[in-house]
Amino acid sequence: MACRICYSVLVTGSNRGIGFELVRQLVDSPLGPVKIFAGCRDPNGPRAQELQELAQKHQDVITVVQLDIGCPASITEASKLVEAKVQDKGLNLIINNAGVNIPGSLADTGKSTMVDVYTTNVVGPMIVAKDFRPLLCKAAAQFSHQTSMSCKRSAIINVSTLLSSITMCHENFSQAPMYPYRVSKAALNMLTRCLAEDLKNDGILVMALHPGWVQTEMGGSEAPLTAAESVRGMLGVITNLTEKDTGTLLDWKGNSIPW
Amino acid sequence: MACRICYSVLVTGSNRGIGFELVRQLVDSPLGPVKIFAGCRDPNGPRAQELQELAQKHQDVITVVQLDIGCPASITEASKLVEAKVQDKGLNLIINNAGVNIPGSLADTGKSTMVDVYTTNVVGPMIVAKDFRPLLCKAAAQFSHQTSMSCKRSAIINVSTLLSSITMCHENFSQAPMYPYRVSKAALNMLTRCLAEDLKNDGILVMALHPGWVQTEMGGSEAPLTAAESVRGMLGVITNLTEKDTGTLLDWKGNSIPW
Ligand SMILES: NC(=O)c1ccc[n+]([C@@H]2O[C@H](COP(=O)([O-])OP(=O)(O)OC[C@H]3O[C@@H](n4cnc5c(N)ncnc54)[C@H](OP(=O)(O)O)[C@@H]3O)[C@@H](O)[C@H]2O)c1
Ligand SMILES: NC(=O)c1ccc[n+]([C@@H]2O[C@H](COP(=O)([O-])OP(=O)(O)OC[C@H]3O[C@@H](n4cnc5c(N)ncnc54)[C@H](OP(=O)(O)O)[C@@H]3O)[C@@H](O)[C@H]2O)c1
Repeated sequence: MACRICYSVLVTGSNRGIGFELVRQLVDSPLGPVKIFAGCRDPNGPRAQELQELAQKHQDVITVVQLDIGCPASITEASKLVEAKVQDKGLNLIINNAGVNIPGSLADTGKSTMVDVYTTNVVGPMIVAKDFRPLLCKAAAQFSHQTSMSCKRSAIINVSTLLSSITMCHENFSQAPMYPYRVSKAALNMLTRCLAEDLKNDGILVMALHPGWVQTEMGGSEAPLTAAESVRGMLGVITNLTEKDTGTLLDWKGNSIPW
Repeated sequence: MACRICYSVLVTGSNRGIGFELVRQLVDSPLGPVKIFAGCRDPNGPRAQELQELAQKHQDVITVVQLDIGCPASITEASKLVEAKVQDKGLNLIINNAGVNIPGSLADTGKSTMVDVYTTNVVGPMIVAKDFRPLLCKAAAQFSHQTSMSCKRSAIINVSTLLSSITMCHENFSQAPMYPYRVSKAALNMLTRCLAEDLKNDGILVMALHPGWVQTEMGGSEAPLTAAESVRGMLGVITNLTEKDTGTLLDWKGNSIPW
Protein backbone atom coordinates (compact mmCIF):
# COMPACT_ATOMS: atom_id res chain seq x y z
CA MET A 1 0.00 0.00 0.00
CA ALA A 2 1.42 3.38 -0.99
CA CYS A 3 1.51 5.86 1.87
CA ARG A 4 1.30 9.64 2.22
CA ILE A 5 4.37 11.85 1.70
CA CYS A 6 3.74 12.99 5.27
CA TYR A 7 0.89 14.10 7.48
CA SER A 8 1.76 17.83 7.65
CA VAL A 9 4.08 20.27 5.92
CA LEU A 10 5.04 23.95 6.10
CA VAL A 11 6.35 25.70 2.97
CA THR A 12 7.80 29.20 3.39
CA GLY A 13 7.57 31.82 0.61
CA SER A 14 4.68 29.91 -0.95
CA ASN A 15 2.81 32.71 -2.70
CA ARG A 16 4.79 32.54 -5.94
CA GLY A 17 7.62 30.80 -7.78
CA ILE A 18 8.87 27.43 -6.55
CA GLY A 19 7.07 27.75 -3.21
CA PHE A 20 3.67 28.18 -4.83
CA GLU A 21 4.29 25.25 -7.15
CA LEU A 22 5.29 23.09 -4.17
CA VAL A 23 1.94 23.79 -2.51
CA ARG A 24 0.08 23.23 -5.80
CA GLN A 25 1.66 19.84 -6.46
CA LEU A 26 1.37 18.74 -2.82
CA VAL A 27 -2.34 19.50 -2.67
CA ASP A 28 -2.94 17.89 -6.07
CA SER A 29 -1.19 14.66 -5.16
CA PRO A 30 -3.46 11.80 -4.05
CA LEU A 31 -0.73 10.95 -1.52
CA GLY A 32 -0.21 14.57 -0.47
CA PRO A 33 -0.23 15.79 3.13
CA VAL A 34 -3.42 16.12 5.16
CA LYS A 35 -2.35 19.57 6.32
CA ILE A 36 -0.38 22.08 4.28
CA PHE A 37 0.72 25.33 5.94
CA ALA A 38 1.45 27.87 3.23
CA GLY A 39 3.75 30.52 4.67
CA CYS A 40 3.51 33.93 3.07
CA ARG A 41 4.72 37.32 4.24
CA ASP A 42 1.72 39.32 3.06
CA PRO A 43 -1.31 36.98 2.84
CA ASN A 44 -3.69 39.83 2.07
CA GLY A 45 -1.51 41.55 -0.50
CA PRO A 46 -1.84 41.41 -4.29
CA ARG A 47 1.01 38.89 -4.64
CA ALA A 48 -0.84 36.30 -2.55
CA GLN A 49 -4.05 36.22 -4.62
CA GLU A 50 -3.31 33.02 -6.52
CA LEU A 51 -2.35 31.26 -3.30
CA GLN A 52 -5.53 32.49 -1.57
CA GLU A 53 -7.62 31.13 -4.45
CA LEU A 54 -5.90 27.75 -4.24
CA ALA A 55 -6.40 27.69 -0.46
CA GLN A 56 -10.08 28.56 -0.93
CA LYS A 57 -10.50 25.52 -3.20
CA HIS A 58 -8.80 23.24 -0.65
CA GLN A 59 -9.95 24.71 2.64
CA ASP A 60 -9.67 21.42 4.45
CA VAL A 61 -5.98 21.03 3.53
CA ILE A 62 -4.32 24.41 3.01
CA THR A 63 -3.92 27.00 5.76
CA VAL A 64 -2.28 30.24 4.68
CA VAL A 65 0.03 31.43 7.46
CA GLN A 66 1.50 34.91 7.81
CA LEU A 67 5.24 34.31 7.93
CA ASP A 68 7.89 36.91 7.21
CA ILE A 69 11.15 35.02 7.36
CA GLY A 70 13.04 38.24 8.18
CA CYS A 71 10.98 38.85 11.30
CA PRO A 72 11.54 36.48 14.26
CA ALA A 73 8.26 37.55 15.94
CA SER A 74 6.31 36.54 12.84
CA ILE A 75 8.04 33.13 12.82
CA THR A 76 7.16 32.60 16.49
CA GLU A 77 3.54 33.56 15.84
CA ALA A 78 3.38 31.17 12.88
CA SER A 79 4.71 28.32 15.03
CA LYS A 80 1.91 28.94 17.58
CA LEU A 81 -0.74 28.92 14.87
CA VAL A 82 0.61 25.67 13.41
CA GLU A 83 0.81 24.14 16.89
CA ALA A 84 -2.85 24.95 17.53
CA LYS A 85 -3.79 23.15 14.30
CA VAL A 86 -1.60 20.04 14.54
CA GLN A 87 -1.59 19.64 18.33
CA ASP A 88 0.03 16.40 19.52
CA LYS A 89 0.70 15.13 16.02
CA GLY A 90 3.39 17.80 15.57
CA LEU A 91 4.71 18.97 12.20
CA ASN A 92 6.50 16.50 9.91
CA LEU A 93 8.12 18.56 7.22
CA ILE A 94 9.39 22.11 6.73
CA ILE A 95 10.53 23.36 3.35
CA ASN A 96 12.53 26.57 3.90
CA ASN A 97 11.96 27.89 0.40
CA ALA A 98 11.62 31.68 0.91
CA GLY A 99 14.73 33.42 -0.35
CA VAL A 100 16.09 36.50 -2.07
CA ASN A 101 18.83 37.25 -4.53
CA ILE A 102 20.04 40.81 -4.80
CA PRO A 103 22.66 40.43 -7.54
CA GLY A 104 25.74 42.49 -7.00
CA SER A 105 29.34 42.80 -8.09
CA LEU A 106 31.92 43.71 -5.45
CA ALA A 107 31.68 47.39 -6.35
CA ASP A 108 27.87 47.36 -6.11
CA THR A 109 27.62 45.46 -2.83
CA GLY A 110 27.48 47.20 0.52
CA LYS A 111 26.89 46.22 4.12
CA SER A 112 23.10 46.55 4.07
CA THR A 113 22.64 44.30 1.03
CA MET A 114 24.93 41.68 2.54
CA VAL A 115 23.06 41.77 5.85
CA ASP A 116 19.57 41.80 4.29
CA VAL A 117 20.23 38.79 2.07
CA TYR A 118 21.84 36.89 4.97
CA THR A 119 18.89 37.71 7.22
CA THR A 120 16.37 36.27 4.75
CA ASN A 121 18.37 33.33 3.43
CA VAL A 122 20.13 32.15 6.59
CA VAL A 123 18.86 33.73 9.79
CA GLY A 124 15.22 33.09 8.80
CA PRO A 125 15.69 29.32 8.29
CA MET A 126 17.64 29.19 11.57
CA ILE A 127 14.84 30.84 13.56
CA VAL A 128 12.30 28.57 11.81
CA ALA A 129 14.32 25.51 12.93
CA LYS A 130 14.56 26.88 16.47
CA ASP A 131 10.90 27.83 16.86
CA PHE A 132 9.45 24.77 15.13
CA ARG A 133 11.84 22.31 16.75
CA PRO A 134 9.32 21.24 19.45
CA LEU A 135 6.71 20.51 16.76
CA LEU A 136 9.20 18.56 14.65
CA CYS A 137 10.23 16.60 17.75
CA LYS A 138 6.59 15.78 18.49
CA ALA A 139 6.13 14.48 14.96
CA ALA A 140 9.35 12.44 15.14
CA ALA A 141 8.25 10.93 18.46
CA GLN A 142 5.16 9.43 16.81
CA PHE A 143 7.62 7.11 15.05
CA SER A 144 9.61 6.29 18.16
CA HIS A 145 9.41 2.56 17.44
CA GLN A 146 11.75 3.18 14.51
CA THR A 147 15.11 4.93 14.40
CA SER A 148 15.19 5.72 10.70
CA MET A 149 14.75 9.24 9.37
CA SER A 150 12.48 10.44 6.58
CA CYS A 151 10.27 13.35 5.50
CA LYS A 152 7.31 11.25 6.57
CA ARG A 153 8.67 11.25 10.10
CA SER A 154 10.35 14.66 10.56
CA ALA A 155 12.56 16.74 8.27
CA ILE A 156 13.79 20.20 7.35
CA ILE A 157 14.61 20.91 3.70
CA ASN A 158 16.61 24.09 3.11
CA VAL A 159 16.32 25.29 -0.47
CA SER A 160 19.90 26.05 -1.48
CA THR A 161 21.48 26.43 -4.93
CA LEU A 162 24.32 25.19 -7.12
CA LEU A 163 25.81 28.65 -6.61
CA SER A 164 26.28 27.78 -2.91
CA SER A 165 29.05 25.33 -3.79
CA ILE A 166 32.42 26.75 -2.74
CA THR A 167 34.09 23.91 -4.64
CA MET A 168 32.38 24.81 -7.92
CA CYS A 169 32.60 28.61 -7.59
CA HIS A 170 35.44 28.91 -10.08
CA GLU A 171 33.28 27.23 -12.74
CA ASN A 172 30.36 29.66 -12.56
CA PHE A 173 31.48 32.84 -10.81
CA SER A 174 32.01 34.90 -13.95
CA GLN A 175 28.47 34.16 -15.26
CA ALA A 176 26.88 34.96 -11.89
CA PRO A 177 29.05 37.03 -9.54
CA MET A 178 26.24 37.61 -6.96
CA TYR A 179 28.31 38.12 -3.81
CA PRO A 180 25.46 38.49 -1.28
CA TYR A 181 23.55 35.47 -2.62
CA ARG A 182 26.45 33.02 -2.97
CA VAL A 183 27.93 33.92 0.39
CA SER A 184 24.52 33.56 2.12
CA LYS A 185 23.76 30.20 0.50
CA ALA A 186 27.17 28.76 1.47
CA ALA A 187 26.29 29.91 4.99
CA LEU A 188 22.90 28.17 4.65
CA ASN A 189 24.74 24.96 3.77
CA MET A 190 26.75 25.19 6.99
CA LEU A 191 23.54 25.89 8.92
CA THR A 192 22.04 22.76 7.32
CA ARG A 193 25.00 20.68 8.36
CA CYS A 194 24.99 22.04 11.93
CA LEU A 195 21.25 21.39 12.25
CA ALA A 196 21.67 17.87 10.83
CA GLU A 197 24.17 17.07 13.60
CA ASP A 198 22.21 18.87 16.29
CA LEU A 199 18.81 17.37 15.52
CA LYS A 200 19.77 13.83 14.60
CA ASN A 201 19.14 12.54 18.11
CA ASP A 202 15.63 13.99 17.85
CA GLY A 203 15.09 11.90 14.69
CA ILE A 204 14.90 15.01 12.48
CA LEU A 205 16.47 14.80 9.02
CA VAL A 206 17.99 18.06 7.70
CA MET A 207 19.30 18.55 4.17
CA ALA A 208 19.82 21.19 1.49
CA LEU A 209 18.21 20.94 -1.95
CA HIS A 210 19.06 22.73 -5.20
CA PRO A 211 15.92 23.14 -7.36
CA GLY A 212 17.81 23.57 -10.63
CA TRP A 213 17.73 26.77 -12.65
CA VAL A 214 14.02 27.52 -12.75
CA GLN A 215 11.70 29.93 -14.59
CA THR A 216 10.55 32.18 -11.74
CA GLU A 217 11.02 35.86 -10.99
CA MET A 218 14.35 34.97 -9.45
CA GLY A 219 15.46 32.50 -12.11
CA GLY A 220 14.33 34.61 -15.08
CA SER A 221 12.76 33.49 -18.33
CA GLU A 222 15.92 31.96 -19.87
CA ALA A 223 16.02 29.27 -17.21
CA PRO A 224 15.77 25.75 -18.69
CA LEU A 225 13.33 24.30 -16.12
CA THR A 226 9.70 25.16 -15.48
CA ALA A 227 8.67 25.37 -11.84
CA ALA A 228 6.47 22.30 -12.44
CA GLU A 229 9.45 20.21 -13.64
CA SER A 230 11.71 21.38 -10.85
CA VAL A 231 9.12 20.72 -8.14
CA ARG A 232 8.30 17.25 -9.50
CA GLY A 233 11.97 16.42 -9.16
CA MET A 234 12.29 18.05 -5.73
CA LEU A 235 9.29 16.18 -4.32
CA GLY A 236 10.67 12.92 -5.72
CA VAL A 237 13.96 13.54 -3.93
CA ILE A 238 12.28 14.64 -0.68
CA THR A 239 10.00 11.60 -0.60
CA ASN A 240 12.92 9.20 -0.94
CA LEU A 241 15.22 10.73 1.69
CA THR A 242 16.58 8.37 4.32
CA GLU A 243 19.00 8.86 7.21
CA LYS A 244 22.02 8.57 4.88
CA ASP A 245 20.87 11.87 3.32
CA THR A 246 20.85 13.98 6.47
CA GLY A 247 23.43 16.75 6.20
CA THR A 248 23.78 16.50 2.42
CA LEU A 249 23.32 18.90 -0.51
CA LEU A 250 21.43 17.30 -3.40
CA ASP A 251 19.94 18.65 -6.61
CA TRP A 252 16.36 18.15 -7.85
CA LYS A 253 17.43 14.92 -9.56
CA GLY A 254 19.00 13.54 -6.38
CA ASN A 255 22.60 14.11 -7.47
CA SER A 256 25.06 15.19 -4.81
CA ILE A 257 26.68 18.65 -5.07
CA PRO A 258 30.11 19.15 -3.43
CA TRP A 259 30.34 21.77 -0.65
CA MET B 1 69.70 36.94 -2.00
CA ALA B 2 66.74 36.56 0.37
CA CYS B 3 64.04 39.14 -0.21
CA ARG B 4 61.41 40.85 1.93
CA ILE B 5 58.07 39.18 2.66
CA CYS B 6 56.53 42.22 1.00
CA TYR B 7 56.87 45.99 1.00
CA SER B 8 53.67 46.82 2.89
CA VAL B 9 51.03 45.00 4.90
CA LEU B 10 47.77 45.75 6.73
CA VAL B 11 46.70 43.55 9.66
CA THR B 12 43.18 44.04 11.04
CA GLY B 13 42.37 43.42 14.71
CA SER B 14 46.05 43.81 15.59
CA ASN B 15 45.84 45.05 19.17
CA ARG B 16 45.73 41.60 20.75
CA GLY B 17 45.71 37.85 20.11
CA ILE B 18 46.90 36.53 16.77
CA GLY B 19 46.75 39.98 15.13
CA PHE B 20 49.13 41.52 17.66
CA GLU B 21 51.53 38.59 17.33
CA LEU B 22 51.46 38.97 13.53
CA VAL B 23 52.58 42.59 13.84
CA ARG B 24 55.20 41.67 16.46
CA GLN B 25 56.80 38.94 14.34
CA LEU B 26 56.60 40.97 11.14
CA VAL B 27 58.37 43.96 12.66
CA ASP B 28 60.98 41.71 14.32
CA SER B 29 61.83 39.87 11.14
CA PRO B 30 64.95 41.11 9.29
CA LEU B 31 62.99 40.46 6.07
CA GLY B 32 59.76 42.02 7.37
CA PRO B 33 57.78 44.70 5.54
CA VAL B 34 58.96 48.30 5.29
CA LYS B 35 55.49 49.51 6.25
CA ILE B 36 53.10 47.77 8.63
CA PHE B 37 49.60 49.18 9.07
CA ALA B 38 48.21 47.91 12.35
CA GLY B 39 44.42 48.12 12.22
CA CYS B 40 42.68 48.54 15.55
CA ARG B 41 39.16 49.64 16.38
CA ASP B 42 40.05 51.73 19.41
CA PRO B 43 43.68 52.88 19.10
CA ASN B 44 43.46 55.09 22.17
CA GLY B 45 41.66 52.59 24.38
CA PRO B 46 43.19 50.46 27.14
CA ARG B 47 43.23 47.33 24.92
CA ALA B 48 45.58 48.99 22.43
CA GLN B 49 48.32 49.94 24.89
CA GLU B 50 50.71 47.10 24.08
CA LEU B 51 50.30 47.79 20.35
CA GLN B 52 50.93 51.51 20.88
CA GLU B 53 54.13 50.72 22.80
CA LEU B 54 55.34 48.44 20.01
CA ALA B 55 54.49 51.09 17.42
CA GLN B 56 56.38 53.68 19.45
CA LYS B 57 59.50 51.48 19.36
CA HIS B 58 59.23 51.04 15.57
CA GLN B 59 57.88 54.42 14.49
CA ASP B 60 59.46 54.15 11.06
CA VAL B 61 57.68 50.86 10.30
CA ILE B 62 54.38 50.60 12.23
CA THR B 63 51.43 52.94 11.71
CA VAL B 64 48.45 52.29 13.96
CA VAL B 65 45.27 52.80 11.93
CA GLN B 66 41.78 53.24 13.36
CA LEU B 67 39.78 50.46 11.70
CA ASP B 68 36.49 49.09 12.99
CA ILE B 69 35.70 46.20 10.68
CA GLY B 70 31.99 46.53 11.46
CA CYS B 71 31.88 50.12 10.23
CA PRO B 72 32.24 50.72 6.48
CA ALA B 73 33.04 54.43 6.96
CA SER B 74 35.96 53.51 9.20
CA ILE B 75 37.26 51.09 6.56
CA THR B 76 37.05 53.77 3.86
CA GLU B 77 38.87 56.25 6.10
CA ALA B 78 41.59 53.68 6.81
CA SER B 79 42.07 53.06 3.08
CA LYS B 80 42.60 56.78 2.51
CA LEU B 81 45.16 56.98 5.30
CA VAL B 82 47.06 53.98 3.93
CA GLU B 83 46.90 55.42 0.41
CA ALA B 84 48.44 58.67 1.61
CA LYS B 85 51.35 56.71 3.12
CA VAL B 86 52.07 54.22 0.35
CA GLN B 87 51.13 56.36 -2.63
CA ASP B 88 52.00 54.82 -6.00
CA LYS B 89 53.59 51.74 -4.47
CA GLY B 90 50.13 50.53 -3.37
CA LEU B 91 49.55 47.95 -0.62
CA ASN B 92 50.87 44.41 -1.07
CA LEU B 93 49.24 42.35 1.62
CA ILE B 94 46.10 42.44 3.75
CA ILE B 95 45.56 40.00 6.60
CA ASN B 96 41.86 40.09 7.54
CA ASN B 97 42.40 38.80 11.05
CA ALA B 98 39.79 40.71 13.13
CA GLY B 99 36.99 38.38 14.12
CA VAL B 100 34.51 37.48 16.83
CA ASN B 101 33.02 34.30 18.20
CA ILE B 102 29.83 34.55 20.18
CA PRO B 103 29.30 30.89 21.10
CA GLY B 104 25.72 29.81 21.01
CA SER B 105 23.54 26.72 20.82
CA LEU B 106 20.44 26.86 18.65
CA ALA B 107 18.28 27.81 21.62
CA ASP B 108 20.66 30.61 22.66
CA THR B 109 21.12 32.13 19.22
CA GLY B 110 18.93 34.90 17.90
CA LYS B 111 18.85 37.18 14.88
CA SER B 112 21.03 39.93 16.33
CA THR B 113 23.88 37.58 17.28
CA MET B 114 23.78 35.97 13.85
CA VAL B 115 23.86 39.35 12.11
CA ASP B 116 26.54 40.84 14.38
CA VAL B 117 28.95 37.93 13.91
CA TYR B 118 28.33 37.91 10.14
CA THR B 119 28.91 41.66 9.96
CA THR B 120 32.31 41.40 11.66
CA ASN B 121 33.54 38.12 10.17
CA VAL B 122 32.24 38.41 6.58
CA VAL B 123 30.92 41.84 5.66
CA GLY B 124 34.00 43.54 7.16
CA PRO B 125 36.50 41.55 5.05
CA MET B 126 34.31 42.16 1.97
CA ILE B 127 34.32 45.94 2.46
CA VAL B 128 38.07 45.83 3.12
CA ALA B 129 38.58 44.00 -0.20
CA LYS B 130 36.35 46.51 -1.99
CA ASP B 131 37.89 49.66 -0.53
CA PHE B 132 41.52 48.53 -0.69
CA ARG B 133 41.23 46.95 -4.14
CA PRO B 134 42.71 49.98 -5.95
CA LEU B 135 45.72 49.92 -3.61
CA LEU B 136 46.18 46.16 -4.08
CA CYS B 137 45.94 46.64 -7.85
CA LYS B 138 48.58 49.36 -7.73
CA ALA B 139 50.90 47.04 -5.84
CA ALA B 140 50.23 44.16 -8.24
CA ALA B 141 50.93 46.43 -11.21
CA GLN B 142 54.50 47.04 -9.96
CA PHE B 143 55.11 43.40 -10.89
CA SER B 144 53.43 43.62 -14.28
CA HIS B 145 56.41 41.97 -15.98
CA GLN B 146 55.39 38.77 -14.22
CA THR B 147 52.06 36.97 -14.16
CA SER B 148 52.64 34.92 -11.03
CA MET B 149 50.86 35.68 -7.77
CA SER B 150 52.36 36.00 -4.29
CA CYS B 151 52.05 37.92 -1.04
CA LYS B 152 55.10 39.90 -2.14
CA ARG B 153 53.09 41.12 -5.11
CA SER B 154 49.50 41.45 -3.89
CA ALA B 155 47.35 39.24 -1.67
CA ILE B 156 44.42 39.05 0.73
CA ILE B 157 44.55 36.48 3.54
CA ASN B 158 41.24 35.85 5.29
CA VAL B 159 41.72 34.27 8.70
CA SER B 160 39.24 31.42 8.77
CA THR B 161 39.07 28.32 10.98
CA LEU B 162 38.82 24.55 10.88
CA LEU B 163 35.26 25.04 12.16
CA SER B 164 34.40 26.68 8.81
CA SER B 165 34.65 23.32 7.06
CA ILE B 166 31.16 22.10 6.11
CA THR B 167 32.70 18.74 5.20
CA MET B 168 34.19 18.26 8.67
CA CYS B 169 31.28 19.67 10.68
CA HIS B 170 30.06 16.24 11.78
CA GLU B 171 33.46 15.52 13.35
CA ASN B 172 33.56 18.54 15.63
CA PHE B 173 30.05 19.98 15.97
CA SER B 174 29.27 18.44 19.33
CA GLN B 175 32.45 19.83 20.95
CA ALA B 176 31.84 23.32 19.52
CA PRO B 177 28.24 23.97 18.41
CA MET B 178 28.80 27.73 17.80
CA TYR B 179 26.14 28.40 15.18
CA PRO B 180 26.89 32.09 14.49
CA TYR B 181 30.65 31.53 14.21
CA ARG B 182 30.63 28.39 12.04
CA VAL B 183 28.00 29.75 9.68
CA SER B 184 29.86 33.06 9.30
CA LYS B 185 33.22 31.42 8.65
CA ALA B 186 31.77 29.10 5.96
CA ALA B 187 30.38 32.30 4.41
CA LEU B 188 33.88 33.84 4.66
CA ASN B 189 35.25 30.86 2.74
CA MET B 190 32.78 31.50 -0.08
CA LEU B 191 33.71 35.19 -0.03
CA THR B 192 37.37 34.14 -0.31
CA ARG B 193 36.63 31.96 -3.29
CA CYS B 194 34.55 34.66 -5.02
CA LEU B 195 37.28 37.24 -4.46
CA ALA B 196 39.94 34.81 -5.73
CA GLU B 197 38.03 34.48 -9.02
CA ASP B 198 37.15 38.15 -9.22
CA LEU B 199 40.62 39.53 -8.51
CA LYS B 200 42.81 37.01 -10.32
CA ASN B 201 43.01 39.16 -13.44
CA ASP B 202 44.28 41.98 -11.24
CA GLY B 203 47.10 39.67 -10.08
CA ILE B 204 45.74 39.56 -6.51
CA LEU B 205 45.98 36.25 -4.65
CA VAL B 206 43.16 35.55 -2.16
CA MET B 207 43.09 32.63 0.27
CA ALA B 208 41.75 31.56 3.65
CA LEU B 209 44.04 30.49 6.49
CA HIS B 210 43.26 28.53 9.66
CA PRO B 211 45.65 29.57 12.45
CA GLY B 212 45.19 26.37 14.50
CA TRP B 213 43.65 26.34 17.95
CA VAL B 214 45.53 29.15 19.65
CA GLN B 215 45.88 30.51 23.20
CA THR B 216 44.14 33.87 22.89
CA GLU B 217 41.01 35.34 24.46
CA MET B 218 39.01 33.61 21.75
CA GLY B 219 40.90 30.32 21.80
CA GLY B 220 41.08 30.04 25.59
CA SER B 221 43.91 28.73 27.77
CA GLU B 222 43.47 25.03 26.93
CA ALA B 223 44.44 25.63 23.32
CA PRO B 224 47.54 23.63 22.31
CA LEU B 225 49.29 26.40 20.34
CA THR B 226 50.80 29.65 21.57
CA ALA B 227 50.14 32.69 19.40
CA ALA B 228 53.89 32.77 18.63
CA GLU B 229 53.86 29.18 17.28
CA SER B 230 50.71 29.74 15.25
CA VAL B 231 51.95 32.98 13.71
CA ARG B 232 55.35 31.47 12.83
CA GLY B 233 53.46 28.81 10.89
CA MET B 234 51.04 31.28 9.32
CA LEU B 235 53.83 33.57 8.11
CA GLY B 236 55.68 30.57 6.67
CA VAL B 237 52.57 29.59 4.72
CA ILE B 238 51.83 33.17 3.59
CA THR B 239 55.41 33.72 2.38
CA ASN B 240 55.34 30.60 0.23
CA LEU B 241 51.97 31.15 -1.47
CA THR B 242 51.92 30.97 -5.26
CA GLU B 243 49.09 31.22 -7.80
CA LYS B 244 48.15 27.57 -7.25
CA ASP B 245 47.05 28.61 -3.74
CA THR B 246 44.58 31.31 -4.71
CA GLY B 247 41.06 30.33 -3.63
CA THR B 248 42.23 27.66 -1.16
CA LEU B 249 41.76 27.05 2.58
CA LEU B 250 45.01 26.01 4.28
CA ASP B 251 46.03 25.59 7.89
CA TRP B 252 49.06 27.16 9.63
CA LYS B 253 51.18 24.19 8.54
CA GLY B 254 50.14 24.55 4.90
CA ASN B 255 47.79 21.55 4.89
CA SER B 256 44.63 21.85 2.85
CA ILE B 257 41.24 21.80 4.63
CA PRO B 258 38.19 20.57 2.67
CA TRP B 259 35.32 23.04 2.17
N1 LIG C 1 14.71 30.11 -9.54
C1 LIG C 1 15.90 29.53 -9.56
O1 LIG C 1 16.49 29.33 -10.64
C2 LIG C 1 16.55 29.09 -8.29
C3 LIG C 1 17.79 28.43 -8.39
C4 LIG C 1 18.40 27.98 -7.24
C5 LIG C 1 17.80 28.20 -6.01
N2 LIG C 1 16.59 28.85 -5.93
C6 LIG C 1 16.02 29.05 -4.59
O2 LIG C 1 14.68 28.63 -4.58
C7 LIG C 1 13.93 29.36 -3.61
C8 LIG C 1 12.67 29.93 -4.26
O3 LIG C 1 13.08 30.75 -5.33
P1 LIG C 1 12.12 31.23 -6.50
O4 LIG C 1 12.84 31.05 -7.76
O5 LIG C 1 10.78 30.67 -6.33
O6 LIG C 1 12.12 32.82 -6.16
P2 LIG C 1 11.00 33.91 -6.36
O7 LIG C 1 10.20 33.60 -7.55
O8 LIG C 1 11.71 35.22 -6.28
O9 LIG C 1 10.08 33.72 -5.04
C9 LIG C 1 10.67 33.98 -3.78
C10 LIG C 1 9.65 33.66 -2.73
O10 LIG C 1 10.26 33.91 -1.45
C11 LIG C 1 9.43 34.80 -0.76
N3 LIG C 1 10.16 35.65 0.19
C12 LIG C 1 11.20 36.47 -0.02
N4 LIG C 1 11.54 37.11 1.10
C13 LIG C 1 10.67 36.69 2.06
C14 LIG C 1 10.48 37.00 3.42
N5 LIG C 1 11.26 37.88 4.07
N6 LIG C 1 9.50 36.35 4.10
C15 LIG C 1 8.71 35.46 3.48
N7 LIG C 1 8.82 35.15 2.18
C16 LIG C 1 9.79 35.75 1.48
C17 LIG C 1 8.73 35.63 -1.80
O11 LIG C 1 7.59 36.27 -1.25
P3 LIG C 1 7.12 37.78 -1.70
O12 LIG C 1 6.18 37.58 -2.87
O13 LIG C 1 6.45 38.30 -0.46
O14 LIG C 1 8.35 38.53 -2.09
C18 LIG C 1 8.41 34.54 -2.80
O15 LIG C 1 7.30 33.82 -2.39
C19 LIG C 1 14.87 30.44 -3.07
O16 LIG C 1 15.40 30.02 -1.83
C20 LIG C 1 15.97 30.49 -4.12
O17 LIG C 1 17.20 30.93 -3.60
C21 LIG C 1 15.97 29.31 -7.05
N1 LIG D 1 42.20 31.51 18.70
C1 LIG D 1 41.87 30.47 17.99
O1 LIG D 1 41.97 29.32 18.44
C2 LIG D 1 41.36 30.64 16.59
C3 LIG D 1 41.08 29.48 15.86
C4 LIG D 1 40.62 29.61 14.55
C5 LIG D 1 40.48 30.86 14.01
N2 LIG D 1 40.74 31.98 14.74
C6 LIG D 1 40.56 33.28 14.07
O2 LIG D 1 41.72 34.07 14.23
C7 LIG D 1 41.37 35.46 14.22
C8 LIG D 1 41.97 36.16 15.42
O3 LIG D 1 41.48 35.49 16.58
P1 LIG D 1 42.14 35.65 18.04
O4 LIG D 1 42.20 34.27 18.59
O5 LIG D 1 43.36 36.48 17.99
O6 LIG D 1 40.93 36.41 18.77
P2 LIG D 1 40.94 37.47 19.94
O7 LIG D 1 42.05 37.19 20.86
O8 LIG D 1 39.55 37.48 20.47
O9 LIG D 1 41.22 38.85 19.17
C9 LIG D 1 40.29 39.31 18.23
C10 LIG D 1 40.83 40.57 17.58
O10 LIG D 1 39.84 41.01 16.61
C11 LIG D 1 39.52 42.35 16.93
N3 LIG D 1 38.17 42.72 16.53
C12 LIG D 1 36.99 42.14 16.86
N4 LIG D 1 35.95 42.84 16.35
C13 LIG D 1 36.50 43.89 15.68
C14 LIG D 1 35.97 44.97 14.94
N5 LIG D 1 34.64 45.14 14.77
N6 LIG D 1 36.82 45.85 14.37
C15 LIG D 1 38.15 45.69 14.51
N7 LIG D 1 38.72 44.71 15.23
C16 LIG D 1 37.90 43.81 15.80
C17 LIG D 1 39.71 42.48 18.43
O11 LIG D 1 39.82 43.86 18.77
P3 LIG D 1 39.22 44.45 20.18
O12 LIG D 1 40.32 44.34 21.19
O13 LIG D 1 38.87 45.88 19.82
O14 LIG D 1 38.02 43.61 20.54
C18 LIG D 1 41.01 41.71 18.58
O15 LIG D 1 42.10 42.50 18.20
C19 LIG D 1 39.84 35.52 14.20
O16 LIG D 1 39.40 35.77 12.88
C20 LIG D 1 39.44 34.11 14.64
O17 LIG D 1 38.18 33.73 14.13
C21 LIG D 1 41.18 31.90 16.01
